[in-house]
Amino acid sequence: MSKAALVMGSDSDFDALVPCIKTLKKFGVEVDVRVISAHRSPELAHEFAEKAEENGYGVIIAAAGKAAHLAGVLAAFTTLPVIGIPVKSSLMDGLDSLLSVVQMPSGIPVATVAVNGAENAAILAAQIFASTDPSVKAKLKEHKQAMRAAIIEKDKMIAERAREI
Amino acid sequence: MSKAALVMGSDSDFDALVPCIKTLKKFGVEVDVRVISAHRSPELAHEFAEKAEENGYGVIIAAAGKAAHLAGVLAAFTTLPVIGIPVKSSLMDGLDSLLSVVQMPSGIPVATVAVNGAENAAILAAQIFASTDPSVKAKLKEHKQAMRAAIIEKDKMIAERAREI
Amino acid sequence: MSKAALVMGSDSDFDALVPCIKTLKKFGVEVDVRVISAHRSPELAHEFAEKAEENGYGVIIAAAGKAAHLAGVLAAFTTLPVIGIPVKSSLMDGLDSLLSVVQMPSGIPVATVAVNGAENAAILAAQIFASTDPSVKAKLKEHKQAMRAAIIEKDKMIAERAREI
Amino acid sequence: MSKAALVMGSDSDFDALVPCIKTLKKFGVEVDVRVISAHRSPELAHEFAEKAEENGYGVIIAAAGKAAHLAGVLAAFTTLPVIGIPVKSSLMDGLDSLLSVVQMPSGIPVATVAVNGAENAAILAAQIFASTDPSVKAKLKEHKQAMRAAIIEKDKMIAERAREI
Amino acid sequence: MSKAALVMGSDSDFDALVPCIKTLKKFGVEVDVRVISAHRSPELAHEFAEKAEENGYGVIIAAAGKAAHLAGVLAAFTTLPVIGIPVKSSLMDGLDSLLSVVQMPSGIPVATVAVNGAENAAILAAQIFASTDPSVKAKLKEHKQAMRAAIIEKDKMIAERAREI
Amino acid sequence: MSKAALVMGSDSDFDALVPCIKTLKKFGVEVDVRVISAHRSPELAHEFAEKAEENGYGVIIAAAGKAAHLAGVLAAFTTLPVIGIPVKSSLMDGLDSLLSVVQMPSGIPVATVAVNGAENAAILAAQIFASTDPSVKAKLKEHKQAMRAAIIEKDKMIAERAREI
Amino acid sequence: MSKAALVMGSDSDFDALVPCIKTLKKFGVEVDVRVISAHRSPELAHEFAEKAEENGYGVIIAAAGKAAHLAGVLAAFTTLPVIGIPVKSSLMDGLDSLLSVVQMPSGIPVATVAVNGAENAAILAAQIFASTDPSVKAKLKEHKQAMRAAIIEKDKMIAERAREI
Amino acid sequence: MSKAALVMGSDSDFDALVPCIKTLKKFGVEVDVRVISAHRSPELAHEFAEKAEENGYGVIIAAAGKAAHLAGVLAAFTTLPVIGIPVKSSLMDGLDSLLSVVQMPSGIPVATVAVNGAENAAILAAQIFASTDPSVKAKLKEHKQAMRAAIIEKDKMIAERAREI
Repeated sequence: MSKAALVMGSDSDFDALVPCIKTLKKFGVEVDVRVISAHRSPELAHEFAEKAEENGYGVIIAAAGKAAHLAGVLAAFTTLPVIGIPVKSSLMDGLDSLLSVVQMPSGIPVATVAVNGAENAAILAAQIFASTDPSVKAKLKEHKQAMRAAIIEKDKMIAERAREI
Repeated sequence: MSKAALVMGSDSDFDALVPCIKTLKKFGVEVDVRVISAHRSPELAHEFAEKAEENGYGVIIAAAGKAAHLAGVLAAFTTLPVIGIPVKSSLMDGLDSLLSVVQMPSGIPVATVAVNGAENAAILAAQIFASTDPSVKAKLKEHKQAMRAAIIEKDKMIAERAREI
Repeated sequence: MSKAALVMGSDSDFDALVPCIKTLKKFGVEVDVRVISAHRSPELAHEFAEKAEENGYGVIIAAAGKAAHLAGVLAAFTTLPVIGIPVKSSLMDGLDSLLSVVQMPSGIPVATVAVNGAENAAILAAQIFASTDPSVKAKLKEHKQAMRAAIIEKDKMIAERAREI
Repeated sequence: MSKAALVMGSDSDFDALVPCIKTLKKFGVEVDVRVISAHRSPELAHEFAEKAEENGYGVIIAAAGKAAHLAGVLAAFTTLPVIGIPVKSSLMDGLDSLLSVVQMPSGIPVATVAVNGAENAAILAAQIFASTDPSVKAKLKEHKQAMRAAIIEKDKMIAERAREI
Repeated sequence: MSKAALVMGSDSDFDALVPCIKTLKKFGVEVDVRVISAHRSPELAHEFAEKAEENGYGVIIAAAGKAAHLAGVLAAFTTLPVIGIPVKSSLMDGLDSLLSVVQMPSGIPVATVAVNGAENAAILAAQIFASTDPSVKAKLKEHKQAMRAAIIEKDKMIAERAREI
Repeated sequence: MSKAALVMGSDSDFDALVPCIKTLKKFGVEVDVRVISAHRSPELAHEFAEKAEENGYGVIIAAAGKAAHLAGVLAAFTTLPVIGIPVKSSLMDGLDSLLSVVQMPSGIPVATVAVNGAENAAILAAQIFASTDPSVKAKLKEHKQAMRAAIIEKDKMIAERAREI
Repeated sequence: MSKAALVMGSDSDFDALVPCIKTLKKFGVEVDVRVISAHRSPELAHEFAEKAEENGYGVIIAAAGKAAHLAGVLAAFTTLPVIGIPVKSSLMDGLDSLLSVVQMPSGIPVATVAVNGAENAAILAAQIFASTDPSVKAKLKEHKQAMRAAIIEKDKMIAERAREI
Repeated sequence: MSKAALVMGSDSDFDALVPCIKTLKKFGVEVDVRVISAHRSPELAHEFAEKAEENGYGVIIAAAGKAAHLAGVLAAFTTLPVIGIPVKSSLMDGLDSLLSVVQMPSGIPVATVAVNGAENAAILAAQIFASTDPSVKAKLKEHKQAMRAAIIEKDKMIAERAREI
């Protein structure tokens, strides 16, 4: 079964990450949720990332705010794909987090999603798993259809509301 | 064999993307290089993305500048992982490109790398292919070792240069 | 009769767009209000824009937030004027939306108004219709006079309030 | 015949605006090119804008840099559509120009294009004229086809170049 | 007697400007408070600024938000010193207002104070009047002493509070 | 005993600085808390900094917002290490404060911490004192262990919460 | 005779300030040009500003880059109007300089001009002197006429050039 | 003797750091210069920082660009003061580097200097060593005097040059 790790730098980010957990579960991806700090428990970060592959993870999702080094630090110790979620916590609605996650030097990529893009991080992980997990692939296609259907539904509702103005 | 598509919005971005092509080849990933514009040939973008999976691509890499919609537009038509490279072409050294690529709405992720992060886009693609392609996995591990060795080499050289100051 | 389409990328933007709908109606411009997503229902966006002219629209107004691709995507499929409203929804009070809407590549313009500039999008649409619709032209002139009169009125009231300080 | 005015705040912006002039002529739009400063010759700006309609202009295009007030100042005196081109001249590659042009208060829109978006300003003007000028409409459609064809041509060339890497 | 004009672009800015009015009165500077919009009543702005000198004003203070053209527009019609107050109303806490006020082209300066710097605009006006108005000069010196005394007072209070922590 | 001065430019910053005071006390560093303004009581700032060394301070911590000159002004009059805390008070969540504190010209460094980084300023001061104060050194090591332990604790709790989703 | 001081924080800013010196001389304002650093010679800055009034200066113009404290530091010691010129020397084309100059706390204004706005600083100084110096007032009015005439001249030339395109 | 380590993330940053090495030597601080990458040789970074104290370093200076994690990563493994130099290498003249270095989470400070502030990093290190090294203290005081003298010298030269304008 596809298995991802979701690592956050601080437990205060948990609520912002619930959509990531829910979406992974919805797509049938097993997820272990961890609090590991690049700065406060760096050797645990080191150890975790180094053993992630043998522990069965196919993707690591890392979320952090401010000088958000967590994703980059984990990426340094593994060749697994690492997805970074910049968390909105400080300057300019999270621009500092975004730049700290995405502007990685050559050699060590972090697959960055939008500030607070927890749901999209899960979908991206599912897209990666889908190449080997047909059940995830099928759920991604259903999800795309469902989004489309939801838009069509809302299109009708809004036309209604607009007429009343 | 692992196969990626590298799509650019304008042929003027080609030179900035050469490191992506070279790195994909180095990792043994086949790559088709395309010029397709989200704005000037939108129905080709639509068609390309919709058929990308059946055409054997495992990952799509999309590069564009300014209001860089290409990655997002391709992602709208596929459940393959889409990697976005913001190209430095305009405001604030490419901040406009970066924000246009990374700030995707929920449901349609783009795995964004740094502004002009062509090499990292290739490595990220290789990391995704590595789950099913042991030869790519092996090359990624070699590359990580080589980067480490290069740093150790440079560490010695710089110590030398510093003594002369 | 002059007819515009107001397309939003998400129904959650509806409230911010009510001033656009009201202003279009005030100027006697018929308006169809739609929810079509560049990312979740892209082929509907394609279809809508391609047929907009034959469906009688003279102007398309598109509103979206974050990596706000909607206006650009619609503009790719039509030669009608497309007005873009960046919606304040994320980074730096909507700077990401603004840049994603306005920084279009050569060949495909989007007539961009201020972040959350719903009323101005409507007035701009009316200014475009006014070349062929004398009734709209007359209402625009009245509106300009009314704004001027309102300022003169407020000028008196404020002089009053300032004296009491 | 469709007639636009292109007004620049400083003659030093002329070179950046040549693509606007060429594109208008290509689409068969007559254009008068003016240097009028919102700050150095403000009463001429006032006079020009107030009489623009009776002088036969259908659209005003205004280009300026820094605290780029020209488009807004002209828009204050007319109900014609005013297209604003922020010119890259100072802070952060023209972000100051862009914000000064686009962030107009309610009531007085400026249809803003990208920083240095001279060609797109011309195309937008053509799109506005096209509702009453079938020849412009036809040329816009040809132009769209030509852009598409050029992309397809470049797509082939780049595939060639990529093979040689 | 020294006399200043305080002009705001919108009556909604009044509350933010009360400290300016109070401070001018405290320094013995007479002030007329006006609402005149650069965009909605431009010819009144023109007329006001052109006659400001003969109407006895020594300084004009102009406050506006967003694409804040008011100070620049008034400065275009007078050789009196014009002080600009960018009002926090939109993007990035008023950065758009600040850049629109301060980044004036050569020839037409606006003496810009901080975003929402209403009190400082008044003090700056007083400093300008002080060269010809000894009573204002004396009050400025008293004010400087009073600020110093207030800081010394607070220094003691805070030492107290810090001890309790 | 190690002794630091914490100087703030305005008593309104006191609450944001309480974590600095508490942390210094926790590490056994004596602290004098002062309100001295670079602008309102500049000669007191001058005097304070010039005598700081002979008054027994080993480190000066300076906190200010907006055009936050306090740290730089104190640094100009001493060779003691000066730590600057940019206070979030105005534009873009304190970016103006940050740039005013950190971008010092060559010759006069300010050791800058994050916007509102009051606790980190205290830890940095303790790190400086630790070279001569073994008790502070010991407490820093304990603090590092405690942070690590807290992360491990939270790691367990979050795993729990994640299972319930 | 009207007399201003132009103070720069570093002699490397001299070339950028030549237009300020030339413009002051053109308007008949005497100018003393000084290099005084807020950080490297702070007590000279203190002394200079404190005696500026008795030394006959009517206005102080201060130019500095990066964390540009000079204008604010001088303003702290005088009640003369202080004009600040942010010099483009570092981050984001001088945005750091601009924010450090303009975002002054209440009580101590700095009349800020555009980044590198050397000429405008001189004109603003002249506008301040003009209230007591009729010769300066006359020259300001001539200058305004000359700017207007130059624009009209350029308007003709550009019309010529545009015809040739 | 006082001993510092200067660690850079890439040898390409060496030239920008020469002023740091020279200044440390001028102040009599011994310096070891290293290339260690937070991302390419992370376990060496770990090892280096953990042993830095027992290896006799009193201060660590870390320089890196883009998502500049090096200073933070080293700070995670030591209680020595860590000084961070953001290197100008990418977005907005190094704003991404600055934010990645300075915006550290609570518990792990990095003493940040200006973008490319190599000389100031050295002076800050010297200021920290000065508490235990009287020779460094003496050199810092001489340096302060020398800067002051240089400013006075330049003040005279510039007065000369200004007269010739």
